[in-house]
Amino acid sequence: MGLPPSSTAPAAPSALRAVVPAGGAGTRLWPLSRASAPKFLHDLTGSGRSLLQATVDRLRPLTGPDGVVVVTGVAHVDAVAAQLPGLGAANLLAEPSPRDSMAAIGLAAAVLAHREGDVVVGSFAADHVVAAGPGFADAVTRAVAAAEQGWVATIGIAPTAPSTAFGYVHVGDPVAGLPGVHHVRSFTEKPPADVAERYLAGGEHRWNAGMFVTRTSVLLGHLARLQPGLHDGLRAIAEAWDTGRRAEVLEREWPRLTRIAIDHAIAEPVAADGGVVVVPGDFGWDDVGDVASLAALLPERDGLRVLGRPENVLVLDADGLVVPAGGRLVAVLGLDDVVVVDTPDAVLVTTREHAQQVKDVVAAVRERGRADLL
Amino acid sequence: MGLPPSSTAPAAPSALRAVVPAGGAGTRLWPLSRASAPKFLHDLTGSGRSLLQATVDRLRPLTGPDGVVVVTGVAHVDAVAAQLPGLGAANLLAEPSPRDSMAAIGLAAAVLAHREGDVVVGSFAADHVVAAGPGFADAVTRAVAAAEQGWVATIGIAPTAPSTAFGYVHVGDPVAGLPGVHHVRSFTEKPPADVAERYLAGGEHRWNAGMFVTRTSVLLGHLARLQPGLHDGLRAIAEAWDTGRRAEVLEREWPRLTRIAIDHAIAEPVAADGGVVVVPGDFGWDDVGDVASLAALLPERDGLRVLGRPENVLVLDADGLVVPAGGRLVAVLGLDDVVVVDTPDAVLVTTREHAQQVKDVVAAVRERGRADLL
Repeated sequence: MGLPPSSTAPAAPSALRAVVPAGGAGTRLWPLSRASAPKFLHDLTGSGRSLLQATVDRLRPLTGPDGVVVVTGVAHVDAVAAQLPGLGAANLLAEPSPRDSMAAIGLAAAVLAHREGDVVVGSFAADHVVAAGPGFADAVTRAVAAAEQGWVATIGIAPTAPSTAFGYVHVGDPVAGLPGVHHVRSFTEKPPADVAERYLAGGEHRWNAGMFVTRTSVLLGHLARLQPGLHDGLRAIAEAWDTGRRAEVLEREWPRLTRIAIDHAIAEPVAADGGVVVVPGDFGWDDVGDVASLAALLPERDGLRVLGRPENVLVLDADGLVVPAGGRLVAVLGLDDVVVVDTPDAVLVTTREHAQQVKDVVAAVRERGRADLL
Repeated sequence: MGLPPSSTAPAAPSALRAVVPAGGAGTRLWPLSRASAPKFLHDLTGSGRSLLQATVDRLRPLTGPDGVVVVTGVAHVDAVAAQLPGLGAANLLAEPSPRDSMAAIGLAAAVLAHREGDVVVGSFAADHVVAAGPGFADAVTRAVAAAEQGWVATIGIAPTAPSTAFGYVHVGDPVAGLPGVHHVRSFTEKPPADVAERYLAGGEHRWNAGMFVTRTSVLLGHLARLQPGLHDGLRAIAEAWDTGRRAEVLEREWPRLTRIAIDHAIAEPVAADGGVVVVPGDFGWDDVGDVASLAALLPERDGLRVLGRPENVLVLDADGLVVPAGGRLVAVLGLDDVVVVDTPDAVLVTTREHAQQVKDVVAAVRERGRADLL
């Protein structure tokens, strides 16, 4: 494979701008995560920082103090601003309604392109967990180097289990002149268990962590070609963003934007044309998608994991995960691998094995007309 | 066996006076039952009436409107009065501190003897459940007839299982001239499982429901003989009860009263002398001692039993007992025979199998210094 489609000449070295789409309710983490207080606003690791705060903490050293842009729904703007007092109003972009990840990331890229020209932007979800250590920064730095040359660069995480909850990237040959960067053969969405087992055994597949690093010109160029309507709408909004016409243009353009994930809009078609590269990331990563994943992140003592104040948990002859987020005492007696998530207005009792079915509970809560609990 | 020791001639027919000792924390029903809001104050059957209210409702037809006396701790006088607005202040006796069941029942008997002379009194726990129907009234009526002749009469419940949580009464020969009344051979405290199995198979043993019916003269006569110090203290208090000296005498006498259960003070020694009879009761009865016992009282639907508002319970692929007493939604996913008791400041998650060990949880809560939750 040769140079990426839109690469003409290496760009001048450019600092990274990070785009953090902060959306998604984290349904399988109900009742902790709610539409009104989604996953990214919570400290799910006991670190004292929410997932969003930890994401920005991790990115700032790579972008400089003003290099992070957060895109979130209007409902969460106040909460995000409160959690990130150093962000600056200009770097907090409010979406009038959810239009999926391409619109969110594309909006930030278009606004940054309008403000700063052709810079490297990377997108990093607000609600993932990344292990401490130099691995993340090393991988992003390699991805930035690839992006500067015109590639769409993603970061692939070494799978530690045959997960059926993640997408995979098929790693190809090394890219000449870019150490630690490989061509991407293809992306695969969440595979069935047997395929995931084969991927794990084969060693050629990595988890797609949804991190995409590319120049604004490259991203918007692909978008203009592949999703011209979406591109034009985002460009129009970006031009008006820092003017008095923002509201008017948003109101006109936003509702018409195509709802599509960046994976389908850009990553997959561009990969098929040979324009995507992957940096194998050497760091721990998790999307904390469900309570089983949450449990795995927490330290364990006698089989018990606690997210919250240990003095509010009392366990006898039992183990599992307890989240005492309701301020009350949670007592568990005689149950193995139980999960108890306690909040002020709802408590969930389940097992780690049923982590995926928590979404069915949320659906049942909705059917019961208890939108106040969602 | 002949006539009971203190019987001289049949007493004139006398209306029953019911004594309802309302004490005990119901530790194994924590966190629903607390020292501050013990079991008898709760509606544990979903009937809309607390156990105490249901007990009084059941007794009033047998005693007349002013024939029930409740004995409770000073801490619960207000709650009892609020639940029983028709009781009348004179019929609510407050114990300065707990001195076990003989002092509580003996106090009421002595006060009634002082007020009314030699009447029949029956003691009935405030926190047991009795099935609706004529069985209870029939049994009490037979017991009153036996009491009038000078016997200490108890009511024996036909065991439906080899319970190791109840005491048993060994039923002897019929008493001549008193249909449906038998001599008591002996009482047995909570037996080991193999003994309970033998009792159940043998058919000669019944559960001791702690209901004792006797004339005040008989009860106080036995007490004077068997526990003279306790008798004299209670008599002194009773004489002062309806006078301005109540507080002074209580303060002097109450702390010196022997702590002993009526079973040990009266029932067992008097039975050994042939003075106790038993009326086989033909009605459902339970002491609702633990969550397993509580579950058995509640209607079941698809394996699920709910005490409280069903709209606050959401169960998927699970069964057991849920008590949504915290006003919040309790969601249970993928657990069999689970027990969830939710209250405003504590939630317990366990299984029916562990019903007896709930007391260990309470002990652990105490050890942790959380007396506010006990």
